[in-house]
Amino acid sequence: MAMHGGIDLGGTKIQTVIVDEDHSVLGSARRPTPTSGGPADVAAEMEAALRDAAKAAELEPETLGGVGVGSPGTIDGGNVTSARNLPDWEGSFALAPTLEDGLGCKVRLGNDVQVATDAEFKLGAGRLYSSLLGVFWGTGVGGGLILDGKPWTGRGAAGEIGHIVVEIDGARCTCGRRGCMEAYAGRAAMEGHVSQLVEKGRKTDLFKLMQERDRTRLTSGIWARALDRGDKLAIHVLDRAVRALGAGIASAVNVLDVEGVIIGGGLGIRLGHPYAKRISEAMQPHLFADFRPPHVHVAALGDLGGAIGAALLVEDDRAAAATA
Amino acid sequence: MAMHGGIDLGGTKIQTVIVDEDHSVLGSARRPTPTSGGPADVAAEMEAALRDAAKAAELEPETLGGVGVGSPGTIDGGNVTSARNLPDWEGSFALAPTLEDGLGCKVRLGNDVQVATDAEFKLGAGRLYSSLLGVFWGTGVGGGLILDGKPWTGRGAAGEIGHIVVEIDGARCTCGRRGCMEAYAGRAAMEGHVSQLVEKGRKTDLFKLMQERDRTRLTSGIWARALDRGDKLAIHVLDRAVRALGAGIASAVNVLDVEGVIIGGGLGIRLGHPYAKRISEAMQPHLFADFRPPHVHVAALGDLGGAIGAALLVEDDRAAAATA
Repeated sequence: MAMHGGIDLGGTKIQTVIVDEDHSVLGSARRPTPTSGGPADVAAEMEAALRDAAKAAELEPETLGGVGVGSPGTIDGGNVTSARNLPDWEGSFALAPTLEDGLGCKVRLGNDVQVATDAEFKLGAGRLYSSLLGVFWGTGVGGGLILDGKPWTGRGAAGEIGHIVVEIDGARCTCGRRGCMEAYAGRAAMEGHVSQLVEKGRKTDLFKLMQERDRTRLTSGIWARALDRGDKLAIHVLDRAVRALGAGIASAVNVLDVEGVIIGGGLGIRLGHPYAKRISEAMQPHLFADFRPPHVHVAALGDLGGAIGAALLVEDDRAAAATA
Repeated sequence: MAMHGGIDLGGTKIQTVIVDEDHSVLGSARRPTPTSGGPADVAAEMEAALRDAAKAAELEPETLGGVGVGSPGTIDGGNVTSARNLPDWEGSFALAPTLEDGLGCKVRLGNDVQVATDAEFKLGAGRLYSSLLGVFWGTGVGGGLILDGKPWTGRGAAGEIGHIVVEIDGARCTCGRRGCMEAYAGRAAMEGHVSQLVEKGRKTDLFKLMQERDRTRLTSGIWARALDRGDKLAIHVLDRAVRALGAGIASAVNVLDVEGVIIGGGLGIRLGHPYAKRISEAMQPHLFADFRPPHVHVAALGDLGGAIGAALLVEDDRAAAATA
């Protein structure tokens, strides 16, 4: 029975899994993504994180049927370019060959958000649907599409739901544009907004919680803690995020009329069902076919969805070879 | 050689064509859509308009291979429900059987905007693309999608790009919601906005032109005339429409990454290339993959696109029968 590995390469963490043919997780590991150095350093840490998961699963990477990687940036065969959240990764880096050399098995690359959407479609909260929109609410807001049972990637850049415009000339987005949904709902933009409001004299415990937890940014866990404490500024900024998510996701649904919407990502998973419900309610007034809203779910595979979806890349590969 | 008929049923006019197997138009006709009575009266006028086109083509409707109809509302087989722009057409009406009885040939129904998009994809400005977004800029703003060479209709309500939210809590839309693209760019909403501004003391020749031309509303032709005369209020309201179209269409492109965008509809056709270019420019600052914007064209089939697309419905039908 062939085991597979999966690596979810994020801007904050590298999550790895080893799965069996039934997609059961035999081992998993997590390491912080290097914030300095360059692509080779990131690749070395990815290899180490995969070895951690293999160790937990009590096997050697060389015996795996293959390892899939969900990566940010532009993917061209085995190369990754313009992974702007990663250190010094503007140019092209031969990630797949580098990992193949290190791990001693086949490596395949896919888009991080798309593999996470595929995983929810095949194994998670999207199993019942033939069309769905995956919304990954974290540092930014990414999106993945399944239409008629297949991923839709357009000319390679589809699913950028974070950059749906919800306010013309609105808040400045981390992408440099104005009024994007992500400019209100992305964790990076939310942190910037909190800082601005604090400078203007508004009070919050968010940064105190950050220091207590020895963090350098407002993580999903810190947001959740501040909400639990009834921090008014945190509640205000999250309300604003939910409002933007409601309008932006409803706009995408008005265009696509998908059956399901899956809310994942660091904030989506951490804030869970109550916030998926709030987002669904915030969508409702903007839905054109409001008599038949899409089903909105939290990503069922949780934090591991990206890595499990990455492992599917090598499984699909094997399926393709078997039918070829 | 089988000829086919096509009927484009709009809120303002009924446009009909007779086409040959090469999709050349042998005859066409246009009648105003009844504004009173009910579905049976509209159907009678549709039959009369199709007979006008048949007469122009020097043939009898009974000899046609079939007649296709592009209709608003919800289509279920041969029935049309909830065609809210049409008089007293909230309930279900057996449009196809009624027309079949009257015309003596087979009748097939399709969604008005989708058949117009199909026509541009197969015969018009979208011929070179495998994925495209049709934008029908008229009384409202409708949309049709072709993805991977096939229409994408979702659960039946996809393509509602007019109701992409461009301003949360923004202008009131004709659909009752707030901030929709159509609330700024639809001709009905634009006319309402002009009326409000005139009440506030702003000057315009728009309504004078309307009376001179013996119209009861601000048609595309009247908007074009007012622009030609340099009417400042008309320019202001159209600038606002273009701004909303730029943001809304860019949002759809960020989600779908289609190759082409086709601008049709009464205003789109009438204002033509200069405005398609303006819309393309207004999209640019909102496009995430801004290094590779989609190609933006005016609908090549012009005012007849909807009716020609409707005729394709019976041709497709024949093709399906031939391969069955």
